[in-house]
Amino acid sequence: YSCVSTTSHPRPSVEKCGQMRFITAEAKASAGRLEGKLREKTLTLDTLNPQVKAVEYAVRGPIVIKAGEIERYLEEGGTKPFSEVIKANIGDAHAMGQQPITFLRQVVALCTFPELMDSPSFPEDAKWRARRILQGCGGHSLGSYSASPGVECIRKDIAAYIEQRDEGVPSDWENIYLTTGASDGIMTILRLLVSGKDSSRTGVMIPIPQYPLYSAAISEMDAVQVNYYLDEDNCWALDINELYRAYQAAKLHCQPRVICIINPGNPTGQVQSKKCIEEVLHFAYEENLFVMSDEVYQDNVYTPDCQFHSFKKVLYEMGPEYFNSVELASFHSTSKGYTGECGFRGGYMEVINMDPEVKAQMVKLLSVRLCPPLAGQAAMDVIVNPPQPDEHSYKQFRQEKSSVLGALADKAKLTEQILNAVPGIKCNPVQGAMYAFPRIFIPPKAVEEAKASMQPDMFYCLRLLEETGICVVPGSGFGQKDGTYHFRMTILPSIEKLKVLLGKVRDFHIRFLKEYSALE
Amino acid sequence: YSCVSTTSHPRPSVEKCGQMRFITAEAKASAGRLEGKLREKTLTLDTLNPQVKAVEYAVRGPIVIKAGEIERYLEEGGTKPFSEVIKANIGDAHAMGQQPITFLRQVVALCTFPELMDSPSFPEDAKWRARRILQGCGGHSLGSYSASPGVECIRKDIAAYIEQRDEGVPSDWENIYLTTGASDGIMTILRLLVSGKDSSRTGVMIPIPQYPLYSAAISEMDAVQVNYYLDEDNCWALDINELYRAYQAAKLHCQPRVICIINPGNPTGQVQSKKCIEEVLHFAYEENLFVMSDEVYQDNVYTPDCQFHSFKKVLYEMGPEYFNSVELASFHSTSKGYTGECGFRGGYMEVINMDPEVKAQMVKLLSVRLCPPLAGQAAMDVIVNPPQPDEHSYKQFRQEKSSVLGALADKAKLTEQILNAVPGIKCNPVQGAMYAFPRIFIPPKAVEEAKASMQPDMFYCLRLLEETGICVVPGSGFGQKDGTYHFRMTILPSIEKLKVLLGKVRDFHIRFLKEYSALE
Repeated sequence: YSCVSTTSHPRPSVEKCGQMRFITAEAKASAGRLEGKLREKTLTLDTLNPQVKAVEYAVRGPIVIKAGEIERYLEEGGTKPFSEVIKANIGDAHAMGQQPITFLRQVVALCTFPELMDSPSFPEDAKWRARRILQGCGGHSLGSYSASPGVECIRKDIAAYIEQRDEGVPSDWENIYLTTGASDGIMTILRLLVSGKDSSRTGVMIPIPQYPLYSAAISEMDAVQVNYYLDEDNCWALDINELYRAYQAAKLHCQPRVICIINPGNPTGQVQSKKCIEEVLHFAYEENLFVMSDEVYQDNVYTPDCQFHSFKKVLYEMGPEYFNSVELASFHSTSKGYTGECGFRGGYMEVINMDPEVKAQMVKLLSVRLCPPLAGQAAMDVIVNPPQPDEHSYKQFRQEKSSVLGALADKAKLTEQILNAVPGIKCNPVQGAMYAFPRIFIPPKAVEEAKASMQPDMFYCLRLLEETGICVVPGSGFGQKDGTYHFRMTILPSIEKLKVLLGKVRDFHIRFLKEYSALE
Repeated sequence: YSCVSTTSHPRPSVEKCGQMRFITAEAKASAGRLEGKLREKTLTLDTLNPQVKAVEYAVRGPIVIKAGEIERYLEEGGTKPFSEVIKANIGDAHAMGQQPITFLRQVVALCTFPELMDSPSFPEDAKWRARRILQGCGGHSLGSYSASPGVECIRKDIAAYIEQRDEGVPSDWENIYLTTGASDGIMTILRLLVSGKDSSRTGVMIPIPQYPLYSAAISEMDAVQVNYYLDEDNCWALDINELYRAYQAAKLHCQPRVICIINPGNPTGQVQSKKCIEEVLHFAYEENLFVMSDEVYQDNVYTPDCQFHSFKKVLYEMGPEYFNSVELASFHSTSKGYTGECGFRGGYMEVINMDPEVKAQMVKLLSVRLCPPLAGQAAMDVIVNPPQPDEHSYKQFRQEKSSVLGALADKAKLTEQILNAVPGIKCNPVQGAMYAFPRIFIPPKAVEEAKASMQPDMFYCLRLLEETGICVVPGSGFGQKDGTYHFRMTILPSIEKLKVLLGKVRDFHIRFLKEYSALE
């Protein structure tokens, strides 16, 4: 039996069109008619999955597309009142010039190219970690699939890290699942909770303002977004009464099944108090809600009087009847913290109190995607298993880590101070994460002018981009109280660049207020 | 304002349970009662998204879980009639001992740890590729996010590769999207096509036998699986009449919108003829179907009289009225071919004739997941941009590549020959990909015994595993004509190990036939 056919079987239409090599719209139409019907696309905006249409993701939305166009325009020699576009729209640390942690890259390079094990220029403490990771990989290669939940020894390192972070609260490595960035884990848990046919009955409680992955996932799965508003006047604190209000209101039209918390907050930068976390967990316990705690910024806390408390540790301290019953998934990532390794797409989730049968179903679902990228898993392992004081790489590691976190703390303070000195801008302290989410006063005239075509804060951010080259994301992309306007900017640019950026924002804002005569 | 609370607000339940550190089921129940209700899980098998429940993925299904248990049992000193489990269930080349392509790993290591650019032990041709990739990355770092469709220069390299592969058929780099393995791309396209609310009206045509990613995706999205059966008696060829039959039958209860083809075939290993591809494309043109061509095994063709023809090239040769209208997405991956880099989760798709508005929606959807892993993108770049004859690394690269592909060709032949020598086993030639999918005769008595509890071929494969340690996947996991039974095994083990494996299969099968007295 041979599967080669030398003669392609004749078909009039094929012969006919074989002659017309360069086709015009007319020719296409006529070709269609020759085929006896006008061709139309199978997949159009009308036939596209409407849930995809409903998805919005401002962090890479229209304003960022516009910024890209301007960048190309400048590259091609075009002129603007500025020489470069500064992208403060996304938490992409390395793109903003942050240097990678040497030790992390050494370990991943060793895993990628084990011949380097013989190189004297790589330290032993990096080599043994790489050897250990590779021993956990099929064929000792980063090129093999791992088990769908991740490489076993990395899951164990993560569990050990969590126990240490939470001062002894037990962590079972079999509750740890490596993910392709935190987003992947968040999507997975939501997919379990949002029930296909009944999706439009399933309520997902999210903070407002929120990180738009949540609203995007809710749209894609056609679930019901249940908003609870953070208290801007109280440093974006989570008010438990607001949680109850949102829950009661939602119960009238859907079944809230899960509450999502982002701590430290994105885009809002607050760090949640222990008391507040207890209240949320008690609420989830009372109302039987699944808790998703997005803790990817757990290493990004800057204000001395703030401290990161993991939801899991607080749950433990509330006692066994809580710790043994509340279903909780917590998410972490290689993309933030002091490493900022976004491109590795590494992350993990710890899931406690999940029904074992459900867990088996989740593993089955994960197995369809085979496994998270191995380099990202290796990077995650370094984060939870960094150099120890008695190891050769410790000094450099500690120095690199503290310089990144120190600079972020300085930039957080600087951003808050400069923005609050601008009339018509109010910025809560950036206690954690890597964003400022200042409230901006937009004069009624500007609101009027904008409303016709777009959200007022989109109008504001587009003007800011056009006039200064600064790319930030309108508050409407994250959600905000009606009639209030904000933008999210990262604090990632270098201190020098950040000062320039903030100065430009100040000048623009004052011009803007003058233009719409809100200032004399 | 401080976000630290020293006093956690008092709540009786918290104080109470603060004392009972070790909790029993009874205590939990009583605690529940104290709370005035019995606690039950938020997420149980009953409340789980039913579409998740419906998902099946045999390649990592029950038989593989069982294999893992046996492995652990052996590690812990348990005894079996065999000393090791041989996993022939999944196309995981490196796990089976295949060595990585040196050049690919050099480039990725250089991208990961650019200090290596100064190392004389890395060749220049690897260094300039790494430099070029890093110049395409934000902050010249693999740790930054790429644009959601992937790094621009890598997309351009892929387009150039496709043009060369297809002997000049034009490829537009803006139609190229990097993905997290091919699976991710396939899921993305299906998500666009399967319309949320109407999902249960959208028909997706897939071959039977199929790679279970397709059936899993269809279940998860609640679409309608439309089976067209490959012709086992004709070397698993695709029969156009069967395509029309399946389509007409499906139209009675759903709207078929997309046809999926896997070429070379997984699990069936056939390589499609040009004539057959033309027929499929004409059919798609006539019926206005979106075409998804899974071409991840395009470099895995072994039979001299077979040749890989890309759907895109064939479409082009059918003339402009086809080439300018049929909507086609083609998928490739770093995981197969001669590199077998599964762990990097690299891949791409080329999408032609997609409505520009739909494309914009797709990019928006991709942007929610931010980007595919950068190391996987870099690996993909090496595959499409390998060392050229005038480059230092060419000789070693060519030697490594041909030794991998040569060994696979030998193992394909060997597998077919040995299996066909066994009474009650018939195996089509393994023309391509990396699997054999032999048909096995299961005696009526065995079918009877199995039917009570499981599929007969599952029963067969479990017995094979228990008695020989060989892990293969039952045909029922891929789909097969009723009353026929198969299993899928990879041809990836080393030639020595493969001979042992096939010998054990032969002996087992003969024992099995004897036991159920189908042999005298």
